Amino acid sequence: MHPTDVSESQTDVLIIGAGPAGLTAAYWMAQYGVNARIIDKRGTKIFNGQADGLRARTRELFDSMGIEDRVERESKTSWEFRVWNPDGKGGLERTGGLGFTKEAYAKSRFFICGLNQGRIERFLLDSIKEAKPDLEVERGVIAETLECDEKLAADPEAYPITVKLRTLSEEEANPSPAYGSSGVRDGLFRSNLSPDDWEDLINKSKAKEGKTEVVKAKYIIGCDGAHSWTRKQLGIKMEGAATDFIWGVMDVVPISNFPDMRQSCAIKGDTGTILLVARERGLMRLYIPLTSTEDPTKRIDRSTINLDMLKATAQKIFHPYTFDFKICDWWSAYQVGQRVASAMSDPTERIFIAGDACHTHSPKVGAGMNISIQDGYNIGWKVASVAAGLSPPTLLSTYALERHPIAEKLAEFDRNWSSLFLPKGVATAANDKAEDGTVADFNTTNARYEDFGQGFVLDYPTSVVVHRWNKSAPLLLPGERFWPAKLTSQSDGERQWSTGIMRSDGRWRVVVLAADVAVPEQMARVQALCGKLDGEKGVIRRFTPAEGNKDAVIDVLAVHSADRSAVDIFDFPEILRPEDEMRGLDYHKIWVDEAFEFDQDCDGKAYDKWGVDRSKGAVLVMRPDQCIGWYGDLEDVAEMEKYFEGVLKVRV
Amino acid sequence: MHPTDVSESQTDVLIIGAGPAGLTAAYWMAQYGVNARIIDKRGTKIFNGQADGLRARTRELFDSMGIEDRVERESKTSWEFRVWNPDGKGGLERTGGLGFTKEAYAKSRFFICGLNQGRIERFLLDSIKEAKPDLEVERGVIAETLECDEKLAADPEAYPITVKLRTLSEEEANPSPAYGSSGVRDGLFRSNLSPDDWEDLINKSKAKEGKTEVVKAKYIIGCDGAHSWTRKQLGIKMEGAATDFIWGVMDVVPISNFPDMRQSCAIKGDTGTILLVARERGLMRLYIPLTSTEDPTKRIDRSTINLDMLKATAQKIFHPYTFDFKICDWWSAYQVGQRVASAMSDPTERIFIAGDACHTHSPKVGAGMNISIQDGYNIGWKVASVAAGLSPPTLLSTYALERHPIAEKLAEFDRNWSSLFLPKGVATAANDKAEDGTVADFNTTNARYEDFGQGFVLDYPTSVVVHRWNKSAPLLLPGERFWPAKLTSQSDGERQWSTGIMRSDGRWRVVVLAADVAVPEQMARVQALCGKLDGEKGVIRRFTPAEGNKDAVIDVLAVHSADRSAVDIFDFPEILRPEDEMRGLDYHKIWVDEAFEFDQDCDGKAYDKWGVDRSKGAVLVMRPDQCIGWYGDLEDVAEMEKYFEGVLKVRV
Repeated sequence: MHPTDVSESQTDVLIIGAGPAGLTAAYWMAQYGVNARIIDKRGTKIFNGQADGLRARTRELFDSMGIEDRVERESKTSWEFRVWNPDGKGGLERTGGLGFTKEAYAKSRFFICGLNQGRIERFLLDSIKEAKPDLEVERGVIAETLECDEKLAADPEAYPITVKLRTLSEEEANPSPAYGSSGVRDGLFRSNLSPDDWEDLINKSKAKEGKTEVVKAKYIIGCDGAHSWTRKQLGIKMEGAATDFIWGVMDVVPISNFPDMRQSCAIKGDTGTILLVARERGLMRLYIPLTSTEDPTKRIDRSTINLDMLKATAQKIFHPYTFDFKICDWWSAYQVGQRVASAMSDPTERIFIAGDACHTHSPKVGAGMNISIQDGYNIGWKVASVAAGLSPPTLLSTYALERHPIAEKLAEFDRNWSSLFLPKGVATAANDKAEDGTVADFNTTNARYEDFGQGFVLDYPTSVVVHRWNKSAPLLLPGERFWPAKLTSQSDGERQWSTGIMRSDGRWRVVVLAADVAVPEQMARVQALCGKLDGEKGVIRRFTPAEGNKDAVIDVLAVHSADRSAVDIFDFPEILRPEDEMRGLDYHKIWVDEAFEFDQDCDGKAYDKWGVDRSKGAVLVMRPDQCIGWYGDLEDVAEMEKYFEGVLKVRV
Repeated sequence: MHPTDVSESQTDVLIIGAGPAGLTAAYWMAQYGVNARIIDKRGTKIFNGQADGLRARTRELFDSMGIEDRVERESKTSWEFRVWNPDGKGGLERTGGLGFTKEAYAKSRFFICGLNQGRIERFLLDSIKEAKPDLEVERGVIAETLECDEKLAADPEAYPITVKLRTLSEEEANPSPAYGSSGVRDGLFRSNLSPDDWEDLINKSKAKEGKTEVVKAKYIIGCDGAHSWTRKQLGIKMEGAATDFIWGVMDVVPISNFPDMRQSCAIKGDTGTILLVARERGLMRLYIPLTSTEDPTKRIDRSTINLDMLKATAQKIFHPYTFDFKICDWWSAYQVGQRVASAMSDPTERIFIAGDACHTHSPKVGAGMNISIQDGYNIGWKVASVAAGLSPPTLLSTYALERHPIAEKLAEFDRNWSSLFLPKGVATAANDKAEDGTVADFNTTNARYEDFGQGFVLDYPTSVVVHRWNKSAPLLLPGERFWPAKLTSQSDGERQWSTGIMRSDGRWRVVVLAADVAVPEQMARVQALCGKLDGEKGVIRRFTPAEGNKDAVIDVLAVHSADRSAVDIFDFPEILRPEDEMRGLDYHKIWVDEAFEFDQDCDGKAYDKWGVDRSKGAVLVMRPDQCIGWYGDLEDVAEMEKYFEGVLKVRV
């Protein structure tokens, strides 16, 4: 090797893989201004296909990240899910469906929608660029070796990790997928039916003496997918099993006389059930069971899988309705299986894996990308906050504690949901319990996993970052999301969802549920609380660098329940209306739980829904990742301080 | 002159001026694919300041143009308007306000919002580019001479107009405004207090032998502002008068302890009333009366006008509250007056003027840009449709017929609204009737002009393009807007406002209010109507070029009131679900007036609001500009044909 081809550098955080999990982790590096890099072996981002379902909680997080309006504009919501079964006379009949329910609506304004992964990566890339223009994805770069010096791991200032990166040639980074007879790219490219090419790429590049770089890092987050190279370096095993079932998937603009062709549906034929998902731009996604028709239990020969075969299989299930297409945006095939990584970090907690690297499963539950994004969202802020010197490294063990059970649950959900799409005899074998793919089965399974699938239930256990003690409100529980509410700005009457108000900007939030502040005694309690927070020994001064803004680390917000016209912002403590020399007052820290008759989402009943007393109020701490960390009464300042002491370092 | 510096060319339509009116007219040229050019004397578009208020109807039109979501994201809605008066003790007190009412909400989901003109021009430019990438604004280009050969005007194929264009130098096109002591640009640049520089620019450029071009055109639309050069060439007079009142205007980020500083307000001081308008990005716009404090009736010396003086005047009126700022985005001053052009075209109807070229007034009603956009929206599609050979030139006389009364009404509205902001004695003289600027006065004047100001009432008279006969529904009147309704797509359950469904894409629309199509007799009526429309001698075939799509000129839509699950799209006539070879069926022509409990806008009561019988239905024709042209029963096909014969040319 030519010596000039090796360079050495240092970075605090190295993210391997720029899919949804990696980009979400990188989003946090940008927010915290951490010295970080993100690499991806592919030369370009993906543009279509792959994971596409966005669940309610992910959209709430996107709202807090400022990108939900772009999702809203480009995606297609599946308002209903309809079930078709054989009518016993050789035809199909609609036997019912699942709609958008009152219960779902009460939990989130967002419903499941479809938008291709390429667009979501674009939105994430744009928001990273906005916050930290120099944090760009380095594409066509692959990690070749990874070592971690355990002796250095205890020193937070040390760079115990050594990674050798190799820059691939244009050709290696952008392999041309073969084209099939129909002129469409070979869909099995990037499928889990294709072998991993990581080692191949390294070896080829080595032979050509490609450029390498030795990087010293404090932390690594491996978001390098189902075949995760990072996971292999750590020797972490995937537990669980693949089944023999192979499914085809395609995004097409259908030409058909099937009456529900623009609706999300399950269409049950004799050889399995098609899942039809409504997409943007006139596209429909189809998941097609590829067992052979003669014997539903027989496996298919992988080499026979192509687009024509997917189409022919779909046509048989749609019969007597017609099904065809001229436009195919993307297609692939995959083997169904559910596996979960045995661990999510190395023993020193310097190297983490997230996303598909931790859990593989079938895509039919429309949750995979969501869980991956939420993995990246969870590990991202923690590593960033530690790397930025704000939080102690003890924070990092909460990642696996919180996310591993989620991965397990995802596998369970997928196992049960996917089996509903298999032919009857097979389903019985694969499923926890025999199911027939009737409307009732879909309803039962959906009801069982709905809250998990949508992301409404996190169930993060007690830890340094989740304090469960004797206080909480029914819907404001430490370890769970902040139950969204649409609130009114005291100063300008603007109405906004709490998910948009509490931005994912890396700050912690003390949310003062100030209750009826028109009552002087109650306002006095709020004043007293804010006085302590803002006092000489208060959490603000203890944990915020002296040189920055007072709200740089902990942002104090109020949500009161008094008549908005009975108070104005000058009645509130100064910490709730800080003044900037250039821009005057901050007008957006005081919010009201006020009804507005022309917006049913703004019903003035947030306190009642949360289960918080409208006269007494409460106070809670929101973690940077929109999860409640602590909850107490307005006087429980000492308890709150204890919480902060566990998650933030006292300023020096 | 060097002969090589003169070139000659031909264009069907030349638009002079690329402000909101000109860009809206150009939007139509792009939609119709007309050979057109648009020039502007300035070297760059504006970025801030100027007109900023967007009214409900404009936002509805933007929805149909596909740009409303960008307005929604960036603008600031003024939910309330609050009135402050002297409290008689040297202070100010809030005496009440105007809010978003049930009545307003029933009329439109949009309320007035603020967003700077520069952004709106950007949205228009982007949508022009999307439809016709080669139609770019030619900046730094000025018209020097204009001639129209009246003998040629009767021949629709002729190019009777000759215009000489001159390309300005960089420096001429981008004059540097002076900077004041505060480092802010001289706000009087582009104010109506500054003299017109058109002639100056021509003369200077001539002396330098700047490049010129002779253009032959079929039509000209002059959108060249209050000092309109086009208007002067046509010898059209402005009628009305300027007053002596001079107002300052500024966009600042206020530093203040005034409690309603993020609300739109009128703050009445002794020397006049400040109008405070909430804006995007923390900005507030202030309109400040600049009469001298000693004698309110005395005029101000224009040379004394600068930003410090505006600030000092505002401070006096805000007293005892503080008022200051460090950030000023833009400021200017203007002389109040209301003038309307005596005509809106030349006698041959080849040259038109639109926007500020036809009406000048004060900006305080927040309607000026809206009326200008709507002028461009009206003349644009008409000229484009005639130039594209789709419509006869007789269409063009309806422009002034429809828009001139609007200009007159705007002047009247402004005269009455503006005077509410003058000191008492002065207001009496200027206003139609003495008013004191109390809450009641604002309410009265607002109520009187609300429907006009928001654009809910057009009152376009009977003409070739508005047929009023013995049929109409209470809220679906020929000559008025289509009263918006949020409808549900039959095929996919997507909910959309009618303004978004009926895109401003240049097509006419036959909207079949199909009523209860679950009743076979009613479906038979719909089938019969569509059969005639689609028949050998029907309007579709008579007015649509044979080579294009069937819905290229006239788009047939249905809105039914039956239970959505009782019918599917295959029950409807083929014209309502046309099939494309590549993309299959068009799934978005059949809509339902269906309630959805989680969206109060989608109340399933559109028929009732419109006043259309839910069992019998009706049919109407929408002009390309979202105005109803004709209304009748499902059997009135012959009448509808007569209407189309007046506005469209039979295909050759």
